[in-house]
Amino acid sequence: MTHTTVAAYAAQSPKAPLERVTIPRRALGEHDILIDIKYAGICHSDIHQARSEWGEAIFPMVPGHEIAGLVAEVGPGVTRYAVGDRVGVGCFVDSCRGCDNCTAGLQQYCTGEQGATLTYNDTDAAGRPTYGGYSTHLVVDEKYALSIPEAIPLDAAAPLLCAGITLYSPLVHWQAGPGKKVAVIGLGGLGHLGVKIAHAMGAEVTVLSQSLRKREAGLKFGADHYYATSHPATFEQLTGTFDLILNTVSANLDLNAYLGLLRTGGTLVQLGVPENPVSVEPFALIPARKSLAGSMIGGLPETQEMLDFCAEHGILTEIEVIGADQINEAYERVVASDVRYRFVIDTATI
Amino acid sequence: MTHTTVAAYAAQSPKAPLERVTIPRRALGEHDILIDIKYAGICHSDIHQARSEWGEAIFPMVPGHEIAGLVAEVGPGVTRYAVGDRVGVGCFVDSCRGCDNCTAGLQQYCTGEQGATLTYNDTDAAGRPTYGGYSTHLVVDEKYALSIPEAIPLDAAAPLLCAGITLYSPLVHWQAGPGKKVAVIGLGGLGHLGVKIAHAMGAEVTVLSQSLRKREAGLKFGADHYYATSHPATFEQLTGTFDLILNTVSANLDLNAYLGLLRTGGTLVQLGVPENPVSVEPFALIPARKSLAGSMIGGLPETQEMLDFCAEHGILTEIEVIGADQINEAYERVVASDVRYRFVIDTATI
Repeated sequence: MTHTTVAAYAAQSPKAPLERVTIPRRALGEHDILIDIKYAGICHSDIHQARSEWGEAIFPMVPGHEIAGLVAEVGPGVTRYAVGDRVGVGCFVDSCRGCDNCTAGLQQYCTGEQGATLTYNDTDAAGRPTYGGYSTHLVVDEKYALSIPEAIPLDAAAPLLCAGITLYSPLVHWQAGPGKKVAVIGLGGLGHLGVKIAHAMGAEVTVLSQSLRKREAGLKFGADHYYATSHPATFEQLTGTFDLILNTVSANLDLNAYLGLLRTGGTLVQLGVPENPVSVEPFALIPARKSLAGSMIGGLPETQEMLDFCAEHGILTEIEVIGADQINEAYERVVASDVRYRFVIDTATI
Repeated sequence: MTHTTVAAYAAQSPKAPLERVTIPRRALGEHDILIDIKYAGICHSDIHQARSEWGEAIFPMVPGHEIAGLVAEVGPGVTRYAVGDRVGVGCFVDSCRGCDNCTAGLQQYCTGEQGATLTYNDTDAAGRPTYGGYSTHLVVDEKYALSIPEAIPLDAAAPLLCAGITLYSPLVHWQAGPGKKVAVIGLGGLGHLGVKIAHAMGAEVTVLSQSLRKREAGLKFGADHYYATSHPATFEQLTGTFDLILNTVSANLDLNAYLGLLRTGGTLVQLGVPENPVSVEPFALIPARKSLAGSMIGGLPETQEMLDFCAEHGILTEIEVIGADQINEAYERVVASDVRYRFVIDTATI
């Protein structure tokens, strides 16, 4: 069967609510698989893009880059997957495949002319717009799909494809593990996975959250300590403590205060994209060899490694499954931080 | 002989020119050595501090933390040095000796209550003000002195104690070497040593300077490439090039433009303390796992390693030796970037 049009939820313009539409999916190529999408997570960046808050965007837009489903059909050259396999797709569906980063498995940082082809709000190599996971089906090259282990239910797996790898990659890169003190700023969709993963890696984990409202949950997820950043004593008490701080909050915080919580040689990694430039004080980095860094999702091999790690350690996303008709309401709740901890769309309702 | 007062050049107040004074030096303790200072380098930070530009300062102030001389006398418990040995002293003369950083040989990042005791503009453990190298003699614990190899003349050695280690330490920490592309922003006292050291480590070295005025010298020091940052094409041409950029300029630059020159995973290290907070754009770090870091001089073992490395590779500071009566004029020339590449005071003229 060659799908040419499928159902989806799209924003027709930056200010429009998402509504049901039909969109084209390409005919199955030699190395393509057709995915029967079961669940799609709602990422805060879906909202930023659907509302055109990150600059020019392509409409109609079908967001969604936390995709989990089953293989429904395979192209003649497909070798990795068979019909019925449990698969996921994350933030990109192609890349140049030739640059140093692609060769090294860091496709998210593809330096080809077009960079990685994003799962939505982008155009593919043939110039067609890409449409994301708020949809019933997706066609993708098998190399850009991941295998979802049996141990992870598809609904709880979907958010791992973006939120999970966004936390896993910097925890690996900056060597979280036994003897390391890791802080996670914000206990939302990203943060709660950061706590679970860092804990499973053996690090001593601290949550830095605005209030103590979610303290009990944070400790249940594996945090050893939980502090309210609205409490000024927190910053005095934790001065010079952490090897690694992962900032999942995209609102602009006073990063200098958080840099003060790093010990010598420590790194604060920005994961959420701040709305405005961040200001770094002259003496915030130099007198203790500190770093302010950024990190963005992960490459294909590392994303697979993350899924396998989560399966091995029983790490699941905490989710609230919704129907497609609740997407617009869910967007409002994400913006208001009223979600524990990730909305996942049951795509059977599209 | 126990020196109690020695000659020095001091600023009596933030706006005063430096003038000849006498200052006390402590009696030689069990583990102390008395150094007959031969040369003292002029570091830009001497000027910032003598002019109280970095906040509260202690006056009278005898600047100077690039000190080279000969051991003139040793305390009864001294084991490392004998009279006549060639020794140097850098930016600090003591530290707590008990914190994790001191134990690890990172005394510059001492986290003891007082931090490292700076060579001047600080107070020692007994509460006495410290006076720096613009002086004829200095008493220091032998553990905080470095051995200057025979291959390095004392005048060219002095600036290595601050400028040299300031560049050497980040080059080691961020693994400059064969196959790595290193850029040095600014070809002054710090920068020219960065070029020489990075080149000796086997890295491919690029100078990023305001103009091409010092191009010939830069290439002679070992740079492979030399670009003018006043030329806008430079930033287009070098996009995504460097593994490591060392910023020796303390004036505020548009760091976002320089972060754009890093390749995936690259690090820009601030060595000069900027006058104002630096502003980092939201997308400057995240989309290619880049870091903005700081680094400050080096610890005692690494400073000795740097001196030995410079001796082995024939790395000397380019200097202009001056008499003590030229210090105030030299300060003006440093501020005007009119020095090739480091002023060194012949302390026999004090």
